[in-house]
Amino acid sequence: MARKKKEIRTDIGWSNASSITLFGRDFTRDILGHLNLGDMGFLELTGRFPTPDESRMFNAMVVTLVEHGITPSAIVARLTYLGAPEAMQSAVAAGLNGLGTVFVGSIEAVAKMLYEAMPAADAQADVAALARQVVKAFNESKRIIPGIGHPVHKPVDPRAPRLREIARETGFDGPYLRLMEAIAEEAGRATGKVLPMNATGAIGALCCTLGFDWKICRGLGVMARAVGLVGHILEESRRPMGEEIWHHIDEIATAHMRPAAGEGEAA
Amino acid sequence: MARKKKEIRTDIGWSNASSITLFGRDFTRDILGHLNLGDMGFLELTGRFPTPDESRMFNAMVVTLVEHGITPSAIVARLTYLGAPEAMQSAVAAGLNGLGTVFVGSIEAVAKMLYEAMPAADAQADVAALARQVVKAFNESKRIIPGIGHPVHKPVDPRAPRLREIARETGFDGPYLRLMEAIAEEAGRATGKVLPMNATGAIGALCCTLGFDWKICRGLGVMARAVGLVGHILEESRRPMGEEIWHHIDEIATAHMRPAAGEGEAA
Amino acid sequence: MARKKKEIRTDIGWSNASSITLFGRDFTRDILGHLNLGDMGFLELTGRFPTPDESRMFNAMVVTLVEHGITPSAIVARLTYLGAPEAMQSAVAAGLNGLGTVFVGSIEAVAKMLYEAMPAADAQADVAALARQVVKAFNESKRIIPGIGHPVHKPVDPRAPRLREIARETGFDGPYLRLMEAIAEEAGRATGKVLPMNATGAIGALCCTLGFDWKICRGLGVMARAVGLVGHILEESRRPMGEEIWHHIDEIATAHMRPAAGEGEAA
Amino acid sequence: MARKKKEIRTDIGWSNASSITLFGRDFTRDILGHLNLGDMGFLELTGRFPTPDESRMFNAMVVTLVEHGITPSAIVARLTYLGAPEAMQSAVAAGLNGLGTVFVGSIEAVAKMLYEAMPAADAQADVAALARQVVKAFNESKRIIPGIGHPVHKPVDPRAPRLREIARETGFDGPYLRLMEAIAEEAGRATGKVLPMNATGAIGALCCTLGFDWKICRGLGVMARAVGLVGHILEESRRPMGEEIWHHIDEIATAHMRPAAGEGEAA
Repeated sequence: MARKKKEIRTDIGWSNASSITLFGRDFTRDILGHLNLGDMGFLELTGRFPTPDESRMFNAMVVTLVEHGITPSAIVARLTYLGAPEAMQSAVAAGLNGLGTVFVGSIEAVAKMLYEAMPAADAQADVAALARQVVKAFNESKRIIPGIGHPVHKPVDPRAPRLREIARETGFDGPYLRLMEAIAEEAGRATGKVLPMNATGAIGALCCTLGFDWKICRGLGVMARAVGLVGHILEESRRPMGEEIWHHIDEIATAHMRPAAGEGEAA
Repeated sequence: MARKKKEIRTDIGWSNASSITLFGRDFTRDILGHLNLGDMGFLELTGRFPTPDESRMFNAMVVTLVEHGITPSAIVARLTYLGAPEAMQSAVAAGLNGLGTVFVGSIEAVAKMLYEAMPAADAQADVAALARQVVKAFNESKRIIPGIGHPVHKPVDPRAPRLREIARETGFDGPYLRLMEAIAEEAGRATGKVLPMNATGAIGALCCTLGFDWKICRGLGVMARAVGLVGHILEESRRPMGEEIWHHIDEIATAHMRPAAGEGEAA
Repeated sequence: MARKKKEIRTDIGWSNASSITLFGRDFTRDILGHLNLGDMGFLELTGRFPTPDESRMFNAMVVTLVEHGITPSAIVARLTYLGAPEAMQSAVAAGLNGLGTVFVGSIEAVAKMLYEAMPAADAQADVAALARQVVKAFNESKRIIPGIGHPVHKPVDPRAPRLREIARETGFDGPYLRLMEAIAEEAGRATGKVLPMNATGAIGALCCTLGFDWKICRGLGVMARAVGLVGHILEESRRPMGEEIWHHIDEIATAHMRPAAGEGEAA
Repeated sequence: MARKKKEIRTDIGWSNASSITLFGRDFTRDILGHLNLGDMGFLELTGRFPTPDESRMFNAMVVTLVEHGITPSAIVARLTYLGAPEAMQSAVAAGLNGLGTVFVGSIEAVAKMLYEAMPAADAQADVAALARQVVKAFNESKRIIPGIGHPVHKPVDPRAPRLREIARETGFDGPYLRLMEAIAEEAGRATGKVLPMNATGAIGALCCTLGFDWKICRGLGVMARAVGLVGHILEESRRPMGEEIWHHIDEIATAHMRPAAGEGEAA
C-alpha cells in the first residue's frame, strides 16, 4: 500500500546558468537596483512590487521593529557571539528565537483579532460597535487585548502616532487602523486606564490594511530584528559586554548559596 | 580576591517613557518614515545615515542576498515550520544557522582577503600586481579563493555585472572592486578556467569600499536572508512541501535497508 | 520613579576555584561517575537523584525519543551542517527548533490533558468515567486528542507496549497510564477506529506519574533528540546527503517553471 | 547537460508499520529498556553498544558537560524563554548556539591536537617528546593550547582528576590521556604558570581513546548541555530571572546616555 504523494512545488523562483527568476521577474534586470530591502520584503509577502505609497508605509512598519537598544534578543545575540564568534549568523538566529508570543508576536495577535472582527476592510463599519464586541469577548474569556499600552512608553508609545501620520500621508489610515484605535479606547474605558494603541497595534492594523495573512505578521518583526541584531553583533565585536554580563549575573544569582566571606573559603 | 569588572555599555540607543533615541537621533521624528529597511541596516553598520548613493548601493547589495529560491536555508525553514508552526520566528532562525563559511560566509572571506592585500583603498594601487600576490599566496597554502566562479551560474553570475553597473552609477567602482576583478582574472589565468567575480565577490569588495569590518560582512547576508525566509514560510503555510520532503527523502535514504517487496512484510 | 526590581536567583548551582556545587551536591565527588546522562536529566527536573526504578524508567522514556531515522529534524540538522560545518552545535540547534506542537510537543499536550482530568494520581479513580469526560470535551471543542494513533506505526506503536512493560517492572504503571489507555480506548470507540496509546502518550502519562510540570515535558524530547542529532551530523560528515537533498528538491519544486527542453535555453 | 546525482543514504535506521530498526537492531526489543541515555549517545557515535566500562566512562564524560550553573548558554535560554514561552525547544536551541570555539569547542581542538601528534594510540610513545613538539608548534604559530588551565577553577579543575580516576578504573587511562597531561606539564614549564589539564582536556583525550572523529567531539558538549538547559528552563518557568536581567543590563549599559536626574525629563 503505497503512500499517497503530495506536491513539492514553489512559485517563488528558479535559476539556471545565466538567469535568476523571482516572482516571475528577471531578478538581475528588474529587481536588483530597483527595490530597496523593505520593498523586497513586500515582494516576498505579496508577490508584487509595492506602489510608492506601499513602499513608504511598509518600510516604516519594518523600520519600527529593527532596533530598540538592549532588548532580550540583543543580549541573547551578544552572549551567543561570546561563545561562537566564528558563527555570527547563529548569534543572530539565537536572538530571533525569542520573538514569540510575548514580544513581537503581538503583531500577529492584533491582526488575528482585527480580521476576526472585520474579515474585510469595510469603510462603512461601525468600528465603535465592533470594538465593544471585541473588548467584551476578550474580557469574558480573560484574554489580554494585544496592541495597546506599553510597559515603558507611557502613556503613549511615540511610534504609534508617527505610524498613524505616515498612514495618513500614504492613504492607509483605513478601517483597520480606526478599529484598532476604537478597541484601545474601549479597553481604556472598560479598565479606567489610558491604554492607547501601541506600535505593534498600529503595525498589526496596517498588516490587515495591506492584506497580509495574520499568520505571517510576526514575520515583519523577524525580518526587521535580524537587521538590528547584526548591528548589536558589530558593537559586541568592538566593545564586548557579553562576558561581563555572564559573570555579573552569575554573581547576583548565586550569592545566596556562596559561603559568607571569612567562612568556607578559609576552611 | 575580587574579579576585575569590565564595562557593560552600548552606544546604540536607549528609551524612556516618551522617546526612543537610536544612534544619537530621535527615532520617531528623525528615522521613522525617512529611512527604508536597507538604510536602517546601513545605520546599524556605520552609525550614520547613508547618502543617496550609499542608500542605493547598500540596498542593492542586501537585496542581492534576500532570495535564491529553494536553497538549503529555505528547506530548513520549511521543515522546521512543519513541526512548530506556532513559532515561525524559530523557523527563520533555523534557516539562518546555515549561513556559515560555505555559503554566505564567502562575503566575509572576500573582504578579509581584500583588506589584507590593500588595507586602505588606494586609487594608485597596482591591482594586477596585488592580485598576483594574492593568488600565489592562496595557491601555495592550498586555500580556495573566495568570490569567484559559481556552481550554477556559468560562466557569469549575472548579479555580479549588475552590481558592478550600480557601483559605477553610484561612484563605488573603486580600487577594491578592481582588485577583486583582477584576482578573478589572475585566478582564471592560473587555472585555465573562466572564473569571473561572482555576486559574493562583488558584495565583499563593496563592503571594503564602504569601510565595513570584515567580521560583520556575513551580516549582510544574514539580514537579507531573514527577509527571504519569511517569504518561504508564507508559501509553506499556503502550499506546504515540508511533509512530502520528509517522507520522500526518508524513502530514498532508507531504501537499501528495507526488505524487498514480497519479503519480510509478508512473513 | 524607580523601577521595582525583581529577584535574580538560581538554586541550580555555583562554583568557586576548587569546587562545583550542583543541586546541593559536590558535583565532582557525588555526581560525576555515579549518575548516567539520563539520571542527570532526572536530577535537572526534580532536584534529586533517581531511585534505581526511576533511573530505569526515565532513561527508557528519553531513549525512546533519541532517534527515529530520517526525521524533519535530522534533515534540518544535515542541511544546516552543509552550509556551516564549522558550527555543528548550530546544526543540532536548528534541528531542535522543529520540536514544536506538531511532533514532540504532544508529550506536553498529553501531560496537560491528564493533569486537568486528574490533578493528583488517584489509585481509586474511575478512569473509564474520566476518559469519557475527556474525550467528550475534546470532541465538543473539536480538538485532536494527543497521544493516540500514529501515522506510520499502525495499528500499534511498538514503543508504547514496551514502555508499558518497563513501567510495570518498575512500578510506574499507575493511574495516569491507566487513564491514558482509557482515553485511547474511549476515543477509538467514539470514532470506530483503532487508536491505541502511542509512544508520546505513554511518555506523557509517565511524566505525570513522575510528577513533572506539564510545561517541561517537551523537554524530554529536546534533551533526547539533541543526542540523536549529533549522530546524524556524524553520519553527514562521513556520507553527506545534504547537498543532494537541496538540488533534488529544487529540481522537483521548480520543474513547472522551467522552460521545456529544447525551448528557452536555446533561444 | 544533466547534473551528476549523488547518493542520499543513511545507515542509522528505518521503520515500518510495526517496527523500528536502529543501527541494525530492533529498537523496541533490543535497545529500549536496556540502554541509558548516555549509552544511546555512544551508540550514535560508534554504531555499537558500549561495554560496561565504556558505558561508565562515556556517561561520566557527558555528565561532566551537562551543567555549570549560570553560564552564557543558560542566560540565553532563559531570555529566549521570556519572549517565547510557548516554544521551549527554541530556548534550548538558542542556548546551544553558543557552544562554539570559545567554550565547548575546546574538546574538539584537544582531540584534533592529540590525533595530529599521535594518529593512533601508541602505548610505547614517548609522550614527553611528543608534548615538547606540540607545545613548540603551538607557541611558534601563536596559537593557544586547548585543554589546559581554567579561568575559574584554579589551579586545578576538580573535574579533571575525577575523570582521570574513572579512566583508571575503566581502563581508559591510555596514551592519549598521558599525552594530554604531558602537554599540560610542558606548557606549564614553558610559561612558568601552573596549567593543569582541565575537564575539556581530559574529555578530548578520552574521545581519542574511544576513537571518536575529532569533528564530532564538540557533540558531546552539545548533547549534554541540552539536558542541562532543560533544567534551566524549568527553573525559569518557576522563578523567572529573564525579565530582571534584561532591565538590569539595559540600565547599566545605557546609563551614560541618559539625562542626569533633574535634567531632561523635566524639560
